[in-house]
Amino acid sequence: MSKKRIAVLAGDGIGKEVMPEGVRVVDAAARKFGIDLQFDTFDWSSWDYCEKHGQYMPDNWKDLVGGHDAIFFGAVGWPEKIADHTSLWQSLLLFRRDFDQYINLRPARLMPGIIAPVVRRDGTPRQPGEIDMYIVRENTEGEYSAVGGRMFNGTEREIVMQETIMSRHGVDRVLKFAFELAQKRAKKHLTCATKSNGIAITMPYWDERFAEMARKYPGIKTDKFHIDILTAHFVQRPDFFDVVVATNLFGDILSDLGPACTGTIGIAPSANMNPDRTFPSLFEPVHGSAPDIYGKNIANPIGQIWAGAMMLDFLGHKDAHDAILSTIEKVLDPKSGAPKTPDIGGKASTTDLGKAIAAAL
Amino acid sequence: MSKKRIAVLAGDGIGKEVMPEGVRVVDAAARKFGIDLQFDTFDWSSWDYCEKHGQYMPDNWKDLVGGHDAIFFGAVGWPEKIADHTSLWQSLLLFRRDFDQYINLRPARLMPGIIAPVVRRDGTPRQPGEIDMYIVRENTEGEYSAVGGRMFNGTEREIVMQETIMSRHGVDRVLKFAFELAQKRAKKHLTCATKSNGIAITMPYWDERFAEMARKYPGIKTDKFHIDILTAHFVQRPDFFDVVVATNLFGDILSDLGPACTGTIGIAPSANMNPDRTFPSLFEPVHGSAPDIYGKNIANPIGQIWAGAMMLDFLGHKDAHDAILSTIEKVLDPKSGAPKTPDIGGKASTTDLGKAIAAAL
Ligand SMILES: CC(C)[C@H](C(=O)O)[C@@H](O)C(=O)O
Ligand SMILES: CC(C)[C@H](C(=O)O)[C@@H](O)C(=O)O
Repeated sequence: MSKKRIAVLAGDGIGKEVMPEGVRVVDAAARKFGIDLQFDTFDWSSWDYCEKHGQYMPDNWKDLVGGHDAIFFGAVGWPEKIADHTSLWQSLLLFRRDFDQYINLRPARLMPGIIAPVVRRDGTPRQPGEIDMYIVRENTEGEYSAVGGRMFNGTEREIVMQETIMSRHGVDRVLKFAFELAQKRAKKHLTCATKSNGIAITMPYWDERFAEMARKYPGIKTDKFHIDILTAHFVQRPDFFDVVVATNLFGDILSDLGPACTGTIGIAPSANMNPDRTFPSLFEPVHGSAPDIYGKNIANPIGQIWAGAMMLDFLGHKDAHDAILSTIEKVLDPKSGAPKTPDIGGKASTTDLGKAIAAAL
Repeated sequence: MSKKRIAVLAGDGIGKEVMPEGVRVVDAAARKFGIDLQFDTFDWSSWDYCEKHGQYMPDNWKDLVGGHDAIFFGAVGWPEKIADHTSLWQSLLLFRRDFDQYINLRPARLMPGIIAPVVRRDGTPRQPGEIDMYIVRENTEGEYSAVGGRMFNGTEREIVMQETIMSRHGVDRVLKFAFELAQKRAKKHLTCATKSNGIAITMPYWDERFAEMARKYPGIKTDKFHIDILTAHFVQRPDFFDVVVATNLFGDILSDLGPACTGTIGIAPSANMNPDRTFPSLFEPVHGSAPDIYGKNIANPIGQIWAGAMMLDFLGHKDAHDAILSTIEKVLDPKSGAPKTPDIGGKASTTDLGKAIAAAL
């Protein structure tokens, strides 16, 4: 089998602490499943680099990593030094856009040993496995167009406008991905997130394309909820959902809310994918650089490790993905006695938890 | 004191069942607090009317209710007969826009006797009073502009665009209302909902205006969260929030999510206000016309009654508002032995619950 090249960009803050554990576990899985991986580490996509060069990434970043099979990404941002949106737009959002990573895939899954903040209707706690969904988010267009502007600047008459832009090409490919994913799942249930009753031009179009695509997948059970009531359903009956497909903005919201409902927002992963493989895909934890806890080696590395599992899945190794995921679940289970970082009630370090997962694999 | 004129529009489905209870309780409160009210009932803003006249409201609707002090609104919609967005855009959204009801105010409050679907970090249930916030939503512009269009219709190259439009006038007046409201509250805490890290033109403007307005209210504690993580915080620590101000779309989402977290989405009210009193304001329950349970007289009338309480508050009678609200809380308390509708675990009818609240007032 051919060698797969992974570009490693740890970035800022706890990105630098969790990345070694991500690499450790991915590497262990690669050895176990006979996957030939090469890790190439880069120090840019970081504030350290930006401080010296005035920008987060070198001008030739596309040449440096464009030929890799995947980008393993930590976190960026250092709010004391540089505005969040600057660091994000100069790295993460640039990758998504320029490498046409049009799918952002994020799981929300209730894990053992984690107390979910949402309970059942009768007040009893939800059990591991009871919540298990994927959010499929459109990742390149829609509400994030950055097209628009201001007029009458600085006056009482000031007006600001920004376009939401959807193309048939952009909408159809994300819907197709979502239907294909639902096809592979046991429940075969796909939910469309919309707001066509209020956002009266773009969202009805989204609905139309969804209905059109649904005709090609008669085996999939579909439904549709407006985003307002959908967030309510996530809280009230998260067990109902299987795959949820959403625009860029709605997907952004749901993919924080979903993991929040399972209590796993600190350990959830995010896969930014170009399924056509024209460009490398990028795999990152959902959490940010968390400067407040950086330097103590107490950050939970599971988000990075889980992102690594999704990366292996994308590279064609579902077995390795499933093995890492069930190892994470085994280690999180209180019965395992495995070390835990402070965020999940333990005293262990980032390194301890990473090593425990690699060893248990 | 001068007579206040209320236009009553029950609308469709359970709107017709809960409205009499709303009127019953508001009327009882008016008598108790010596408020001179006149109720004028209209049969339009309903599918029955639309079926005969081809539209939800008569052409001269502004003349008919424009001189009233408030509109007491039930619910509209009959999905089997007419698309939801048609009924909504021909009534509710027309009122909001044409009567310049630029504030949509919605409480999220944990009530006695209701099991909240969100629990504390340690898994224990949250207690009444622990969650108590107001969502202040911009109600006329922003993401709901309805400005935009399609090109290359029906082809592979199809493109759809819709503008988000913010004016300084429109943004400042909602921010001002939110600061004034926070000023009157015990915690004096105002949260700004934003997404300026992703929606790069309109949302940074919203943030700027918020920062500018904050300088005029040095006594208010402010903070700012991006909408994605904010929905997570609503689930994880709803007790943190006091007043939350948001754009039209984000306010729509948060004002379903907030009540969902308190388990009260079926009984929450919504006030669509024109604080300048140039036009009548409109008060409605958050729930819709619920055709599936219509005709059984089992709908919970508390949303309509609570909306009536907000109406009295707006008309200058905070004492009547507070009295209705504490009566609702008393009746909801399991210890009261008062009748309950099926949605809150009882067997009573809509009428029974309405009468119980009026009697306990
Ligand atoms: C029905 C819909 C257009 C409306 C809105 O989005 O404003 C509703 O969700 C609401 O919040 O009153
Ligand atoms: C940082 C921000 C621009 C980004 C987004 O909204 O896409 C983030 O929230 C995410 O979900 O990865």
